[in-house]
Amino acid sequence: MTVEGLSINLATVRKQWNMAEAAEACLRHGITAIAPWRDQVEAIGLKEAARIVADNGFQVTGLCRGGMFPAGDPEARAAAIDDNKRAIDEACALNADCLVLVVGGLPAGSKDIGAARNMVADGIAAILPHARACNMPLAIEPLHPMYAADRASVNTLSQALDICDALGDGIGVAIDVYHVWWDPQLHEQIARAGAGNRILAHHICDWLVPTHDLLLDRGMMGDGVIDLGAIRASIERAGYHGAQEVEIFSAENWWKRSGDEVLATCVERYRAHH
Amino acid sequence: MTVEGLSINLATVRKQWNMAEAAEACLRHGITAIAPWRDQVEAIGLKEAARIVADNGFQVTGLCRGGMFPAGDPEARAAAIDDNKRAIDEACALNADCLVLVVGGLPAGSKDIGAARNMVADGIAAILPHARACNMPLAIEPLHPMYAADRASVNTLSQALDICDALGDGIGVAIDVYHVWWDPQLHEQIARAGAGNRILAHHICDWLVPTHDLLLDRGMMGDGVIDLGAIRASIERAGYHGAQEVEIFSAENWWKRSGDEVLATCVERYRAHH
Repeated sequence: MTVEGLSINLATVRKQWNMAEAAEACLRHGITAIAPWRDQVEAIGLKEAARIVADNGFQVTGLCRGGMFPAGDPEARAAAIDDNKRAIDEACALNADCLVLVVGGLPAGSKDIGAARNMVADGIAAILPHARACNMPLAIEPLHPMYAADRASVNTLSQALDICDALGDGIGVAIDVYHVWWDPQLHEQIARAGAGNRILAHHICDWLVPTHDLLLDRGMMGDGVIDLGAIRASIERAGYHGAQEVEIFSAENWWKRSGDEVLATCVERYRAHH
Repeated sequence: MTVEGLSINLATVRKQWNMAEAAEACLRHGITAIAPWRDQVEAIGLKEAARIVADNGFQVTGLCRGGMFPAGDPEARAAAIDDNKRAIDEACALNADCLVLVVGGLPAGSKDIGAARNMVADGIAAILPHARACNMPLAIEPLHPMYAADRASVNTLSQALDICDALGDGIGVAIDVYHVWWDPQLHEQIARAGAGNRILAHHICDWLVPTHDLLLDRGMMGDGVIDLGAIRASIERAGYHGAQEVEIFSAENWWKRSGDEVLATCVERYRAHH
């Protein structure tokens, strides 16, 4: 029986399975939507990954990830733009709903977050024509402020939507509850995103108290403090009724369990909390 | 020789010294401004703490901390308000420039951050008359969003200033670079704070890359990615020329070094980066 509206970001089971194994396991659990990472695609080959998607009729709710635009020298920034264009092509080959962008933090040695943010906007502007030509939406994922230095200098929905507004169509946002749940402007910015048809993805997990690691201690839905129901209600009010994609990095817990236990828990908790 | 404009938040050397020892050490290093925590005051007694301050002419740039308003039941919220009134009295006894408020996160078991934020505003409103009667400014310290669940649901300067605007005079903000450096609205909100005469304290340290612990891995000025000079310039443009208070929680590094080494480094880095 298909679990309607649930997608699994394959990072959630990256320690247990490769993409082919994970996809097969998802089908066993009635999950027909997935979101792979580029390294997972590369490990089995783009052609084989695309075949798995096509043959099984998977919805690919996103390819993770493009981005990482800021760099200290122009050559490195140009290389990042080239790499992002390849990521767009891969997302097309996989028939993904969007290419997720983790935009990048500060260049090594820099303390100028304003300059990094400008590099992000410039980088996205540089790849947007290619994305539009391929009809591949770009989804800016604002990351939690604790990643501002090393992963993404776009840290709020407001900021991401300002970039979208400046650049026009073909671009929107991926709303991951882990990154945005604390934002005092959350619900008004979700409404703004919906009004502009900018919501391209909705990622779920939970914020644990305490959190033991800045990157690899995300919680399963229901184990933390995020009001998933309230956020989903806002997102649906804003007009987005697409899949909820579970994305959990959990070095000490979920990555150590069997993949089947993880997927069964994702299904159970999704049903309880969506 | 006095180090003008430098204050030491005594949490920075809390593992090495009690308040009396720390104060004496500060004088050795030419530091004439300090900010103790309530537990440090309590450990030597309020009377003795006040004597140390008065006899040595210390500036007390803040007492840490009041706050922690949200709670699941009304009795606990009332107890928090009583405790905050005692904190105001202690701040007065120490002739502190302000009482710093770490407002509190979610009540146990709650996922309703909006309700927690309302409890914060209500709690501050309840203690403000006492603070005004004592002429003791209250400084809301917005904490980094990674503390939204367990320490403070006020996570941006904008949010703190909205509370100030709603409540009137006798209240302002403590601007700690660690908590706000990532904020896309940082410089405009500093200007707003200055225009309203709301800047009561300026705390400094640095954001390390990588950061190994959410709470106890703050860096010494210059060891991380925060543009301290740019933030200070904004704060001075906004009309605040008061002390910069070093506040570093560092379980694995600075708390393990000799207190004299820590203070000497604070002086050196303050001179290099202010």
